[in-house]
Amino acid sequence: MVEFTVFKGSKDGSITSSTTKRDIGPNQVLVKITHSGLCGTDVHYTHVDMGLGHEGAGIVEEVGKNVTLFKKGDTAGWGYVQGACGHCKQCLRGAETFCADREMYGEANLDQGSMATHGVWREDFLFHIPKALKLEDAAPLMCGGATVFNALQFHGVKSTDRVGVIGVGGLGHLAIQFAAKMGCEVVVFSGTDSKKEEALKLGATEFYATKDQKEIKINGKIDHLLVTTSAQPDWDLYLSVMAPSGTIYPLTVSNDDLKIPYMPIIMSGLKVQGSLVAARQIHNEMLNFAAVHNIRPMIQTFPLNLEGINDAFETLEGGKMRYRGVLVA
Amino acid sequence: MVEFTVFKGSKDGSITSSTTKRDIGPNQVLVKITHSGLCGTDVHYTHVDMGLGHEGAGIVEEVGKNVTLFKKGDTAGWGYVQGACGHCKQCLRGAETFCADREMYGEANLDQGSMATHGVWREDFLFHIPKALKLEDAAPLMCGGATVFNALQFHGVKSTDRVGVIGVGGLGHLAIQFAAKMGCEVVVFSGTDSKKEEALKLGATEFYATKDQKEIKINGKIDHLLVTTSAQPDWDLYLSVMAPSGTIYPLTVSNDDLKIPYMPIIMSGLKVQGSLVAARQIHNEMLNFAAVHNIRPMIQTFPLNLEGINDAFETLEGGKMRYRGVLVA
Repeated sequence: MVEFTVFKGSKDGSITSSTTKRDIGPNQVLVKITHSGLCGTDVHYTHVDMGLGHEGAGIVEEVGKNVTLFKKGDTAGWGYVQGACGHCKQCLRGAETFCADREMYGEANLDQGSMATHGVWREDFLFHIPKALKLEDAAPLMCGGATVFNALQFHGVKSTDRVGVIGVGGLGHLAIQFAAKMGCEVVVFSGTDSKKEEALKLGATEFYATKDQKEIKINGKIDHLLVTTSAQPDWDLYLSVMAPSGTIYPLTVSNDDLKIPYMPIIMSGLKVQGSLVAARQIHNEMLNFAAVHNIRPMIQTFPLNLEGINDAFETLEGGKMRYRGVLVA
Repeated sequence: MVEFTVFKGSKDGSITSSTTKRDIGPNQVLVKITHSGLCGTDVHYTHVDMGLGHEGAGIVEEVGKNVTLFKKGDTAGWGYVQGACGHCKQCLRGAETFCADREMYGEANLDQGSMATHGVWREDFLFHIPKALKLEDAAPLMCGGATVFNALQFHGVKSTDRVGVIGVGGLGHLAIQFAAKMGCEVVVFSGTDSKKEEALKLGATEFYATKDQKEIKINGKIDHLLVTTSAQPDWDLYLSVMAPSGTIYPLTVSNDDLKIPYMPIIMSGLKVQGSLVAARQIHNEMLNFAAVHNIRPMIQTFPLNLEGINDAFETLEGGKMRYRGVLVA
């Protein structure tokens, strides 16, 4: 039995600190969390009584008796939606992300998250972090990195494709780097020119400020468009720059309906592809690709305590995060 | 110079008969039209001054001096959106359906259609009709058949997949046959049980009446869902029966926006795939597949004259067509 501190949401939206007790099962691993990323999705959970955070990195402190993949002292990363039943059609086809019975947390217990001093997770749902990655950089890759990499890698982006990225933020600034290192032309759309220089430095080949624009004129049409903004974009504006048979990935979490002009989708054979983090193998490839190509999130750090978490949420919700918040134990 | 009769729409929605004169170019073919299908899309064009009909079948009457693919007396079929530039990225990749410069009619001249006594078309945009197919059956395949076959064949439906078809009509009754002959389990959704027996005869393995249903309980989730109704369906109802990572093909022509619940698309990694008739190679495969597997539209015939065309439109718009109207010269 171990005891540790977990930071959770609550009905009134305030973040609370509580103590939880867990047994370490035979296939489980106790991780001392050193870093937790802060994702836009966490904002949705501040009003729920559950452990916050799903971008964890840390050091293995103890392992269950049957654990073979990790040992004390190893680094370990933990993310969202990695759980999979292992025996449904999707899993057996290798598409475990879409497991029909997936466990959203890789564990049924919601009383823990990466905003905590520790976590107890099944070894199968933890990731080894390549040595070339610092733990503070690895944490935001656990969800943000996995989300954009999966869209690019799982759904068949080719290095000869033109990849559009709407929004330079927590997801967008990683998408630019991944797509650029995959060899793609990367076309970035942002409200104003304020992030232009940074986007080009991250690997963008073109940059367009879209605020108040009724039309976008670009050098060539977009084969794959990653939507990373916090709300749905002006679809009319973007459908006109999509290449025939191109794919749109709405990566935003939104409670609104998807409302998109219909006939352009049909006439141009466009595809709207739902995509969500990554299956474990793709997640591993993502970490390795980031290590090999020196892909790093740009982070702002905060202490991993109540004050730090509140500060981080405030910065994120105020639109001031450049570009991913990381809580440091 | 040849002269022939064309039936066209007009501003007030009445159908007119007019005479057109055409030269037969060196690469063009004069086809005497024996049959023209009537497609839901034609309804949209009754208010436009252009030749109606895009499901033509007939006999070659004359060929231009450079024509090598057809000779006098051959059967020939002509459909929609077969034109392609041949040199854009999509064409060169073999996805000519999505040609960036496609000619909607395979010819720039809109003053002709399949509701006519004749048509003059480039030989490249005509199809040989397999001997096993009657011309009256071939006509509705030129758009209706191509549309459903393309969704199934181009986008990767496997014979082990469960294919859903919403709507038993001009498209739906062909989709059921094609999917069944491809070896798929075919799950049909229709308002009431009135078309159940026919759907099962056409190859459906399951049939569900959906009117007033708040929930559909089916034997297993759907991998590919073809929407063939004349309006968008109740998406909530259908998203719940989609298999994770499944694909939805909205084949309906609609001037409304596509408005679909957002988070289920993301969470289940669903795909909304625009699809429109077929590239020429796929069109040829469709005709061959229909011939080999004895796939036949169920048709109602009308005379190919003003009165017959008006009757056919009335039958179609009254929802009484079982299941595809064919105008016979």
